[in-house]
Amino acid sequence: MRMVDVITKKRDGNKLTKEEIDFFVKGFSNGSIPDYQVSSLLMAIYFVGMDMEETINLTRSMIETGVVLDLDEIKGYKVDKHSTGGVGDKTSLVVGPLVASLGVVFPKMSGRGLGFTGGTIDKLESIPGFNVLLDKKAIFRELKEIGMCIVSQSEDLVKADKLIYSLRDVTGTVPSIPLIASSIMSKKIASGADLISLDVKVGSGAFMKDLDNAIKLSKCMIEIGKGFNKKVHVIISNMDSPLGCAIGNNLEVIEAINTLKGNGPKDFEKLCLEFSKRIIYDAKITNDLDEAYKLCYDNLHNGKAFNKFKEFVKAQGGNIKYIDNPDLFDKAKNIIEIKSNKKGYINKIIANKIGISSMKLGAGREKKEDIIDFSAGIILNKKPEDFVNIGDVIATIYTNKDNFDDVIKDILDSFIISDKNIKEELIIKFMD
Amino acid sequence: MRMVDVITKKRDGNKLTKEEIDFFVKGFSNGSIPDYQVSSLLMAIYFVGMDMEETINLTRSMIETGVVLDLDEIKGYKVDKHSTGGVGDKTSLVVGPLVASLGVVFPKMSGRGLGFTGGTIDKLESIPGFNVLLDKKAIFRELKEIGMCIVSQSEDLVKADKLIYSLRDVTGTVPSIPLIASSIMSKKIASGADLISLDVKVGSGAFMKDLDNAIKLSKCMIEIGKGFNKKVHVIISNMDSPLGCAIGNNLEVIEAINTLKGNGPKDFEKLCLEFSKRIIYDAKITNDLDEAYKLCYDNLHNGKAFNKFKEFVKAQGGNIKYIDNPDLFDKAKNIIEIKSNKKGYINKIIANKIGISSMKLGAGREKKEDIIDFSAGIILNKKPEDFVNIGDVIATIYTNKDNFDDVIKDILDSFIISDKNIKEELIIKFMD
Repeated sequence: MRMVDVITKKRDGNKLTKEEIDFFVKGFSNGSIPDYQVSSLLMAIYFVGMDMEETINLTRSMIETGVVLDLDEIKGYKVDKHSTGGVGDKTSLVVGPLVASLGVVFPKMSGRGLGFTGGTIDKLESIPGFNVLLDKKAIFRELKEIGMCIVSQSEDLVKADKLIYSLRDVTGTVPSIPLIASSIMSKKIASGADLISLDVKVGSGAFMKDLDNAIKLSKCMIEIGKGFNKKVHVIISNMDSPLGCAIGNNLEVIEAINTLKGNGPKDFEKLCLEFSKRIIYDAKITNDLDEAYKLCYDNLHNGKAFNKFKEFVKAQGGNIKYIDNPDLFDKAKNIIEIKSNKKGYINKIIANKIGISSMKLGAGREKKEDIIDFSAGIILNKKPEDFVNIGDVIATIYTNKDNFDDVIKDILDSFIISDKNIKEELIIKFMD
Repeated sequence: MRMVDVITKKRDGNKLTKEEIDFFVKGFSNGSIPDYQVSSLLMAIYFVGMDMEETINLTRSMIETGVVLDLDEIKGYKVDKHSTGGVGDKTSLVVGPLVASLGVVFPKMSGRGLGFTGGTIDKLESIPGFNVLLDKKAIFRELKEIGMCIVSQSEDLVKADKLIYSLRDVTGTVPSIPLIASSIMSKKIASGADLISLDVKVGSGAFMKDLDNAIKLSKCMIEIGKGFNKKVHVIISNMDSPLGCAIGNNLEVIEAINTLKGNGPKDFEKLCLEFSKRIIYDAKITNDLDEAYKLCYDNLHNGKAFNKFKEFVKAQGGNIKYIDNPDLFDKAKNIIEIKSNKKGYINKIIANKIGISSMKLGAGREKKEDIIDFSAGIILNKKPEDFVNIGDVIATIYTNKDNFDDVIKDILDSFIISDKNIKEELIIKFMD
């Protein structure tokens, strides 16, 4: 088989066979096919697409380049959660302990963030002592004892994904639905859970800018799940404005703690409850969705989810004192309030601009090698649908940098204020 | 400027600026932009295309990566000729001396062939002693004294083209009109002639399989010429059946010699006269096309073109005895006649199949490093529109290989014979 023939076949609009897909994925993975051929094939896939059979075969070939976790010895219904990423998204930090407190097993493997703020792994590392690098033995012990873990994805999992993703990143071939879907799903399937619970974000602060593509991506991932006998459900949620009020690593951990104590921002609590409800319903903890909601709501307000979170942090070496007293978390040197220069209803807080601003304050990585400042970020003092007067504090920045005038201007610009109150729909669509 | 942004811009259907095109061509040429980014951009160009301004800018950037020949000190009207390549195409060997015998200067720079048979350079090297590697001083002397030369293209000419072409060849990005046009035209423009005379072949044995694309490519090359104040004319000619009767290196030289003596195959002579007529008309040797034809026809039949060919071969070190007595050329060990197994009119001789057959007999290169057998090839004893009976000799193979049964079968299959006489149009279209 010649790689140029595989490229030409796809370029000309044809379907690739299982063998052809396997040939290029494994060839690239083992170094026998050069990156310049793979990148031109990826661009052809961007233009021509792949059907479901091809996408499932791609996912399978990718999985076969690494190890596959077998969680069979762990009793119970195992759920992995993944978000396509947004600004202020700390959902897993709440959903994990909440569903674990209701008897679901929550083994989450997560990557590091490259973008606006850190990923879940980076956020957890802002808790002093927290260890995300557990070996298989430690993971299994924690799952058996606590019912959850959140660990950094093993280097041995889906080796081809790292290679292909790095190449896509620099060759303009990221936004292709079969490539995105196979990248996400290969890792989730290799991680061995029974249910894969997906948060597909759509809006200015998300990777997916429009709903049509978000639906297509969701359908594609659900279908891949079927190809591997894995239950997949998706909530498509709004990412035009940030989720919750906190953006930045330890700021988000503190917001998760507050939410686990029943004092979270309304929108963030709502999304956490929606996910948890769907998860415990699919786990057959109850056969009634309203009952599922009630169970989740109760555990978020009776301390049980919070206690599970503490057990989890402790099991992974985190300092529990910080969880009990979030005032202990490092604070940024500069904490500056931003006051509104307009009067009216906040219609939107452009998530994309807020994300870039938080990155500029130190909360995220522009390049892989950048070091995250855990204390940096933004607190939104006002949210969409709030009414503000000129001079009201609408946001607070946290940074150890000394030059932030531009960021303040950008944050002010990201608040869209008018005399009409416009509602944003947070939860757009559930699919399974 | 970041290469990924250039790729994304083109991928999304946008026009690249002069600066963006220059950035990637020169960056690739100097090694600062990696091949995997260039190949994904080339695939995006394949799908999105480039408009004329982009294509001219691409051609200019490519030219600027190498040396440009300045032929100003050579008096007279200078013509370079290029064919997109076909089976049995030895046109330059006749057109060069013919137009030079009428006062036109013919400085032809040529590449080596990779494909069915050798290129013009390989064919000339089948003449013992012939030297295609002349330095600038020798080229200028020959042009001044003889009025023509055919030399191997300088390594310093359009360095980016070699790099980009090698990459296109293995990444499925060859058949893109702006990429083909800029590749051909950059070399021709850098070679410094006043007129670029192009033979765009269309049909089974050609790179371009359909007329629409051949016309688009021709228009594109004419427009590039305008962008550099170079006159360009194109003859689109049929390559469904091979041109002339000889396919193979010294076999084609012998056919060129016969044609220069007025004894060439009808179709081949016709195409040579058509090119020569258009060239001497554009060179203003005469302002009347009929007169131009007559001048060319006469010199092909009065020995003047043949004498010019001899001067040229001598000037480049070739052994003139072979030109005077073509029987001296090496003959293949096996010379086998193929007899028709059908009766009727020959409608077509599938050029593609004949080309591959001649390559298998040793006349062409499958890989760059393959060595050509100058004596190998095929003579077509019958041509389209001829009537044949079962048992008539329709072709003769020349080879030093001992295993050629498959080739004989393929050659037989390539003769399409029916009871109707169907005419093939040789010269399809003239454009300028």
